[in-house]
Amino acid sequence: MDNPSVNKPLNLGIAGLGTVGIGVLRLLQNNEKTITNRAGRPIRIYAISAKNRQKNRNMDLSNLKWHENPLNLAKDPNVDVVIELIGGAHGTAYELVCSAIENKKAIVTANKALIALHGNELAKKAASQNVPLLFEAAVAGGIPIIKTIKEALAADRLIQIGGILNGTCNYILTTMTKTGRDFNDILKETQKLGYAEANPSTDIDGLDTAHKLSILASLGFGYTFNFDDIYVEGIRNINPYDIHYAQELGYTIKLIGIAQHHQNNKLELRVHPALLPNTSPLSRVNGVINAITTQGEFSGYLMLEGAGAGEGPTATAVCADIIDIARGNTIPMWGTDWNELRPTNLIPNTDFNKAYYIRLFVEDKPGVVADIATVFKDYNLSLRSLLQHKNHIIHNAENTVPIVLVTHKNKENSLLKALKEIHKLPAILEKPIVIRIEEP
Amino acid sequence: MDNPSVNKPLNLGIAGLGTVGIGVLRLLQNNEKTITNRAGRPIRIYAISAKNRQKNRNMDLSNLKWHENPLNLAKDPNVDVVIELIGGAHGTAYELVCSAIENKKAIVTANKALIALHGNELAKKAASQNVPLLFEAAVAGGIPIIKTIKEALAADRLIQIGGILNGTCNYILTTMTKTGRDFNDILKETQKLGYAEANPSTDIDGLDTAHKLSILASLGFGYTFNFDDIYVEGIRNINPYDIHYAQELGYTIKLIGIAQHHQNNKLELRVHPALLPNTSPLSRVNGVINAITTQGEFSGYLMLEGAGAGEGPTATAVCADIIDIARGNTIPMWGTDWNELRPTNLIPNTDFNKAYYIRLFVEDKPGVVADIATVFKDYNLSLRSLLQHKNHIIHNAENTVPIVLVTHKNKENSLLKALKEIHKLPAILEKPIVIRIEEP
Repeated sequence: MDNPSVNKPLNLGIAGLGTVGIGVLRLLQNNEKTITNRAGRPIRIYAISAKNRQKNRNMDLSNLKWHENPLNLAKDPNVDVVIELIGGAHGTAYELVCSAIENKKAIVTANKALIALHGNELAKKAASQNVPLLFEAAVAGGIPIIKTIKEALAADRLIQIGGILNGTCNYILTTMTKTGRDFNDILKETQKLGYAEANPSTDIDGLDTAHKLSILASLGFGYTFNFDDIYVEGIRNINPYDIHYAQELGYTIKLIGIAQHHQNNKLELRVHPALLPNTSPLSRVNGVINAITTQGEFSGYLMLEGAGAGEGPTATAVCADIIDIARGNTIPMWGTDWNELRPTNLIPNTDFNKAYYIRLFVEDKPGVVADIATVFKDYNLSLRSLLQHKNHIIHNAENTVPIVLVTHKNKENSLLKALKEIHKLPAILEKPIVIRIEEP
Repeated sequence: MDNPSVNKPLNLGIAGLGTVGIGVLRLLQNNEKTITNRAGRPIRIYAISAKNRQKNRNMDLSNLKWHENPLNLAKDPNVDVVIELIGGAHGTAYELVCSAIENKKAIVTANKALIALHGNELAKKAASQNVPLLFEAAVAGGIPIIKTIKEALAADRLIQIGGILNGTCNYILTTMTKTGRDFNDILKETQKLGYAEANPSTDIDGLDTAHKLSILASLGFGYTFNFDDIYVEGIRNINPYDIHYAQELGYTIKLIGIAQHHQNNKLELRVHPALLPNTSPLSRVNGVINAITTQGEFSGYLMLEGAGAGEGPTATAVCADIIDIARGNTIPMWGTDWNELRPTNLIPNTDFNKAYYIRLFVEDKPGVVADIATVFKDYNLSLRSLLQHKNHIIHNAENTVPIVLVTHKNKENSLLKALKEIHKLPAILEKPIVIRIEEP
């Protein structure tokens, strides 16, 4: 509290003037007095850098120093904090952050890919130069989940962190659930609305969720692991039939990221569509909203829900980090010294132990159910329910009927083997669809 | 980050060994290594004080210094942080905190009444001595709402803060909703389960919620106000009829605390039962769970949900404060310097502008509805719906029928006057029941 730098202005150098960058400028201007009070000192935008200086941003930037090359922000002696809002795991964003560390400047970034892929290396570098590197906006925009795990839950040992971390996917799945419409159809509409990128793969194939999950897991459990070992499955193959049958069974399909700590000091990190019971809080998180739940030994259950993206919420998160730096209230990047993190192996999906939803399209003839049940028995898999929708005509093919199976918890390895066998049965018309069920 | 006190142990003096105190001891012992890592230095319980030294606490306390008088913790030269877990707005808790400030010791407290009633005075005292005073556990136990408002949302101007802040009331109302049973019946059961005190007034009459709401409002809006001006109404008069009719209309009845910022720099602070639309996130928060939503100009909507009480969650909050102190990461009590807070008047309930649920028991004879509608017209009140349950026999009186009215937004003053008139109508058999509707 007796920080000698109180009242000395904190000078920012902002790289990137996209949605978030403009939001940060607006928020700092709009709430200048409040922010000065809460930061204990003035916060001043000193220099900026973006791709195109000429672009009309509906803002007077003439009194701010312009750097053509963002890397020069890191070298500018008047800049105290570099705000990296360029994005991307490699290239300029990475170079800028490294250069800022070398030049002993504090860093705030909203770059999830950078932190997920280079976090451990950057934590080590930042510690060696004793500079803070904060990244609240990198995960779930306006939801303060980084601060919550790093500070509010610091005393506890967490068992599980999970949630809905991608607004695009949640919007698509919510709309599919509400309308019964097709994935591709809604994806196109979502792109028109600006909720999905022209190349939507990072969102819909789960990589974005994996980046965020990886950061939460490093923070929450204190391990290092190989990012590529995270199990990642997107939502391209979710179709209206399965959403419909899931609802019939009392479930909603969501794309979730789950990090689970096992007692043998192993971690289970997975991103995939899942059937959530309609009684679970996450099942009711709709549209572009994000939500994260934590489960801790002492802290119990906690859920945070809010805007996972957008100018205002993300800018609020960036500015919260800036205020922490202004106050001198910073802690090591992963919440502990970087060398306290321990390496671990992630559990492969074949070792997951879950309940499963399985949907088959079969030829409508006697004996099919018996054949399927026999395979399940052979692999020692326990079934919870089997539904055959006789009156549900599929594919305009009159003799095709869907069979929906729900299993108890089983080892995924056995399940996948059984499904390979089932797929070979003559009455099975398509590759079986499998979706994990996420239950307490 | 270059805190000179890193690695020097932080010595705690804990006053009060009830549920929370024992939880803090357990958590600090259980997670010693993790906490040392995250705090950057060892945290040591040095001294304790409680009413009865002989009580069996299933814990070895023999190596801790015992102070018969808790006030001596504040004077003990080896104590760095006083942890006040005694409770109560006045008396020993107040004296201990004041003495700790005088002795330049950091303070952590879980005492909502103390902070709600003496917060401004303590903020001034703490600032003058430059000591941190943290109180995360004072509001909603394990939910980090203090840190979220004070730090994560520091850059934003909030419009509204509200939520379900009392687990006892929420448990009672949830059980009434699920079972259709009577308030007094369930209160007794709740007392047996240990969720309600022998004297339950602080909880069920809304005072506890008002304490928490007052703290959130000071933090979130930066005003000082007269605590007694908060509008407070408890849940004693909620009965199964109204819960039933509310459900029919698509609402759930909850006890809420709402703080709303008006553009004229006035604050509306109110605690009362309310009808929440079943589509709203708070309507689904059941049992002893607490939840708080914030609405900010930039940050938008945010909700935090979790355990509002209990040994583990509350201890996690207390220890988060201790870790912040260990790291030197503390800010002024209300998030800004105490003298930045501005006095304001709270809006009286007669100036509230809400939609209302009104339930009347009337004699079943022609013309009653017309008489009621005339009074509404006379007071210029706009009605949204009127339901008359002909087939719902009440009080074993065959000619008594309930009438349920829902209004549009109206000034409360006019509504109360109209209801006085309606009460005088000869066909009205009981005092009209009014419950506010909380809608976006």
